[in-house]
Amino acid sequence: MAPLRSYVAGSWHVPRDEGAPLLDAVTGQEVARISSAGVDFGAALAYGRGVGGPALRELTFHQRAALLKALASHLREHREELYELSARTGATLGDSKFDVDGGIGVLFSYSSKGRRELPNATVHLDGAVEPLGKGGSFAGLHLYTPLRGVAVQINAFNFPVWGPLEKFAPAFVAGVPSLVKPASQTAYLTARLVELIVESGILPEGALQLACGAPGDLLDHLTEQDLVAFTGSAATAQKLRTHPSITGRSVRFNAEADSLNCSVLGPDATPDGEVFELFVKQLVTEMTVKAGQKCTAIRRAFVPAHLMDAVAEAAAARLARVKVGNPANPEVRMGALASLGQREEVRRSLKALMQAGTTVYGDAERVEVVDADPERGAFVSPVLLRVDDAGLAEPHEVEAFGPVSSLLPYGSAAEVVELAARGQGSLVGSVVTGDPDFAREVVLGAAPWHGRLLVLDPEAAKESTGHGSPLPMLVHGGPGRAGGGEEMGGVRGVLHHMQRTAVQGSPDMLARVTGRWVPGAGRSVTDEHPFRKHLEDLRPGDTVVGGPRPVSLADVEHFAEFTGDTFYAHMDEEAARANPFFDGRVAHGYLIVSLAAGLFVHPDPGPVLANYGLENLRFLTPVYPGDELTVTLTAKQIDPREDAAYGEVRWDADVTKQDGSSVARYDVLTLVAKRVP
Amino acid sequence: MAPLRSYVAGSWHVPRDEGAPLLDAVTGQEVARISSAGVDFGAALAYGRGVGGPALRELTFHQRAALLKALASHLREHREELYELSARTGATLGDSKFDVDGGIGVLFSYSSKGRRELPNATVHLDGAVEPLGKGGSFAGLHLYTPLRGVAVQINAFNFPVWGPLEKFAPAFVAGVPSLVKPASQTAYLTARLVELIVESGILPEGALQLACGAPGDLLDHLTEQDLVAFTGSAATAQKLRTHPSITGRSVRFNAEADSLNCSVLGPDATPDGEVFELFVKQLVTEMTVKAGQKCTAIRRAFVPAHLMDAVAEAAAARLARVKVGNPANPEVRMGALASLGQREEVRRSLKALMQAGTTVYGDAERVEVVDADPERGAFVSPVLLRVDDAGLAEPHEVEAFGPVSSLLPYGSAAEVVELAARGQGSLVGSVVTGDPDFAREVVLGAAPWHGRLLVLDPEAAKESTGHGSPLPMLVHGGPGRAGGGEEMGGVRGVLHHMQRTAVQGSPDMLARVTGRWVPGAGRSVTDEHPFRKHLEDLRPGDTVVGGPRPVSLADVEHFAEFTGDTFYAHMDEEAARANPFFDGRVAHGYLIVSLAAGLFVHPDPGPVLANYGLENLRFLTPVYPGDELTVTLTAKQIDPREDAAYGEVRWDADVTKQDGSSVARYDVLTLVAKRVP
Repeated sequence: MAPLRSYVAGSWHVPRDEGAPLLDAVTGQEVARISSAGVDFGAALAYGRGVGGPALRELTFHQRAALLKALASHLREHREELYELSARTGATLGDSKFDVDGGIGVLFSYSSKGRRELPNATVHLDGAVEPLGKGGSFAGLHLYTPLRGVAVQINAFNFPVWGPLEKFAPAFVAGVPSLVKPASQTAYLTARLVELIVESGILPEGALQLACGAPGDLLDHLTEQDLVAFTGSAATAQKLRTHPSITGRSVRFNAEADSLNCSVLGPDATPDGEVFELFVKQLVTEMTVKAGQKCTAIRRAFVPAHLMDAVAEAAAARLARVKVGNPANPEVRMGALASLGQREEVRRSLKALMQAGTTVYGDAERVEVVDADPERGAFVSPVLLRVDDAGLAEPHEVEAFGPVSSLLPYGSAAEVVELAARGQGSLVGSVVTGDPDFAREVVLGAAPWHGRLLVLDPEAAKESTGHGSPLPMLVHGGPGRAGGGEEMGGVRGVLHHMQRTAVQGSPDMLARVTGRWVPGAGRSVTDEHPFRKHLEDLRPGDTVVGGPRPVSLADVEHFAEFTGDTFYAHMDEEAARANPFFDGRVAHGYLIVSLAAGLFVHPDPGPVLANYGLENLRFLTPVYPGDELTVTLTAKQIDPREDAAYGEVRWDADVTKQDGSSVARYDVLTLVAKRVP
Repeated sequence: MAPLRSYVAGSWHVPRDEGAPLLDAVTGQEVARISSAGVDFGAALAYGRGVGGPALRELTFHQRAALLKALASHLREHREELYELSARTGATLGDSKFDVDGGIGVLFSYSSKGRRELPNATVHLDGAVEPLGKGGSFAGLHLYTPLRGVAVQINAFNFPVWGPLEKFAPAFVAGVPSLVKPASQTAYLTARLVELIVESGILPEGALQLACGAPGDLLDHLTEQDLVAFTGSAATAQKLRTHPSITGRSVRFNAEADSLNCSVLGPDATPDGEVFELFVKQLVTEMTVKAGQKCTAIRRAFVPAHLMDAVAEAAAARLARVKVGNPANPEVRMGALASLGQREEVRRSLKALMQAGTTVYGDAERVEVVDADPERGAFVSPVLLRVDDAGLAEPHEVEAFGPVSSLLPYGSAAEVVELAARGQGSLVGSVVTGDPDFAREVVLGAAPWHGRLLVLDPEAAKESTGHGSPLPMLVHGGPGRAGGGEEMGGVRGVLHHMQRTAVQGSPDMLARVTGRWVPGAGRSVTDEHPFRKHLEDLRPGDTVVGGPRPVSLADVEHFAEFTGDTFYAHMDEEAARANPFFDGRVAHGYLIVSLAAGLFVHPDPGPVLANYGLENLRFLTPVYPGDELTVTLTAKQIDPREDAAYGEVRWDADVTKQDGSSVARYDVLTLVAKRVP
């Protein structure tokens, strides 16, 4: 059988040796061979930096997001093929969908987030512009630019599709090329995934490379601008983290390590209640999905002491219904582990756990198997243990990376928070309860030790995605033993691939550097009203000034009557004076912004199509009858849409009164048509 | 002389041995002795975690911020004493103010940022609530909670006041106790600073500890919840970063290492112009402030090739006016290095640099000194080198941590961006130019290699704080050689000390866990209008529903006439229909929010004092004449102010029409009086 090819430096590389065999987890047959012999890792990284990076940086966030969507659609068309190959890793169809559809879902999600939450530009601003001097001639802001290196992504064997895609998507949106290094056991599935991607021709050349087999001297070639994202064991994470290239060059190293995640059953549960059932059902699901080979699986199930027997019994009954065997058989609920080697690992860890606990269900050495040879396939029974002394070390320290969990008793919320912390940092925890006070105490207490916490109650259960599912819009990763990293989390994951730089200068200079108008920068007022300009013709700084418009007491009273807003500060001189902020009757804030619109708007049909919102509106100084309002409206940020005949324009609105003081300041959000749709 | 005391585990610890002498940088006399003999580092960390952390977590962000302000005022009263001690480190009065006033300024800034940008609560939400299901029963959000460990702060010798304070302030606001480890040479100044802090009694016990002398087994006692923030050399950063406690427990390690920062003179400069003068003046200032012992000092000055001679001449002339000597003499512009050891280091590095360059000004071995003994004081001349082949390695790799810089020529913007990157990651760079296109190209090109970039032009120069000054509202730290870390940056620095946890659950559960109303959570509608409730009596979820209120064509026309907003979409049926978003004439967005206010406001004097703003307003569905509006206003977040008789209340406003669809959604910001001021 031909060994898997790597895709490096723009072409498919066939290994220079025969490679090592990769075996079907169910049948033990050879599926593929793997080797990295002859891969020039230094050249691959240089190619990513020299070809992939520049190509990606030519594109805006929105353009990259659009490619991601096209890629997701392409892969969705080929998912059946991926499911088939996935079955050879021991996965049931449900497991395969979790991996394949989950991965495709991450691409769709990042495409959507990239377009909705990032500008259609190549750099991103973080937070507010900070004035740095009282005279207004010096200010600062934070700018995100893509790192100029390669995101080296070292994946675990358990999610050969989702794993690479959830790391690739945020890097790609950021404008950083990826080099994917799959774990050997299941690399044939990742390799096919990358073939599908390359065949599609959707991505710019160099945006994605694949290196199958041993990583060789890959890390030796890292520079300050590269990143490493690792998923796998805590031990390997520690080894990689201390590599001289990583420590010596401050390479961003993100680790996501499997951890001893917990699930807590609330004290409100009763054996015949819904909360109890949700807990037991979730526990069994987490034990058996992917045969428990999930970094996020529940390893420690904390149960009120008086419910230990009832939970053990209910869980055992459910586990007894889980058929183990060949995933091709539709009756099978749990497939095989990824390899016989993994089964040995699980058995070894189980022995250590058995020092502390007793078996509630299952047998590490024996399992009844449907439609498969139990000796050639990497099958193992689900095993539920019970550890009645929750203070023992093993259940908090030993992880069997398979369908294995331990039940542990607790007394109070404070106690279970301490027990949860004994995992020394976890990816995820869950609290199954209908009691919000208990949920609050456990969540706030356990949060510093967790990357994600799920509160499951009958309401949430209607749509819950479950304890074990990282979601692209939420951060994934946890402190301490879980690796101390963070992946995904929507735009947060994109920004992990970018450098945040504070930029200081005069407002004019900051405007020119960022391509956006910033407060204090020059404004361009011409005879042409900026509402008459199409998107392509508008420039940051284009301004219209309207007013002055006097505001009379009659205006205020009329507005009050018309809108029904007869708040005393507008209507009653004496009461208004008693208010700590006003010296007498004041104009409505809504009147001010309404009049301001009347002053800046151009009435005729033209490029400005609609005002779709306002942001950051602050009323800064009261407006009293007799004051006169002037509005200065300045184009601030111009974002064409890739797939529409218009784009978003954000305007700075500054409403001042006769003494020059600002009475209201806000951003007006409009849609403006393109000249050339 | 008695050795410096450490402040650990709630009391002052006198070292168990005599300690090593610390010498006055100017006179060579002994200032103090230092030793950590007998300090129990494990106990100190345990005390921070067990006493300091819980005490801090009792307080809200605003309460901590208020203490910081009190502390800043206290220290300001004692700054003369700190200046005096600072002079013994070799600092001029200007240098001392930079250090002492700078540090106090960080406290004030964090106090202000903490109160203005964080809630008056103990946890902080990050970003938007993410719907996780279509039915609205499952959602997620990101919660920041303080880490439960100690922030171990290992400081450099050059800023014995600013250094500890800029690390302490964000940790304190976050609710994380600090353990300060000053560099030995200047530890007597940090020790006095901590004495002043402890004597003030302002901070909760355990919030700040001080360990003078060798760090012993400090790092061995770190846990997953501790952090380490280090400032110093890249070599030491690498050593600490690979400590088994740090790598094995994924301890957050933040390094800020001195780097080969650059300053670029723009091609628009002419020898008699202002830009040229700004560049040369800044270069000389950065060389001589703190005798060049700044991580942020300019080490590489890039100059258009044809200006090399002119810059060399002008800089040398300025340097010739810098008097070196005893900082007590008011004529002295540059004091001593911190120690004779530092002088040896500088001389050694200068030798390496001289391989590549020639001297423009100064002599490493000889300097004329005012009012001091040049042998006993750690004096060194400013040394400006010139390296005509900018491709040589030394100027990009060798740092002399003293008053030493190199001039290097460049041709194009692209070339200087590449040269800047050869520093392999810097804390800061500056571009001195009046040409915005050049500035843009250099800033966007160099940003991935920099933590901060300054664009200096005559406008910015009026208020510029300079190349070398990190500011509390901007991030400080850089990639690669600069350590790969980030400090300060306003609230960003606070969040570095907190764990970000994704929390999933039903909206009701999320509301209960966070203490804030979230979309989809239950609302409480009672006979009592929530505007009648004082701050203490309001609860998240308290709601008033107003309407329905029909909107007629007459209303729209009247509003248009009254405000002057006669935009065609409100006035002209045919033109409105031609707009891609409307099916005919629509109501003004400002009319909708004005009518909504009329529907939710309670007119009588009461606890609600003012509407000070709106946020996140989106118009979601057009309103046509004949539609009827209903508004649902729900208290979302309640933030009492510590120092006022009122607080902020944020309300969710949802304006719907007769078919139930939302037409506008926004946050209304109000000030609400306390019942008990």
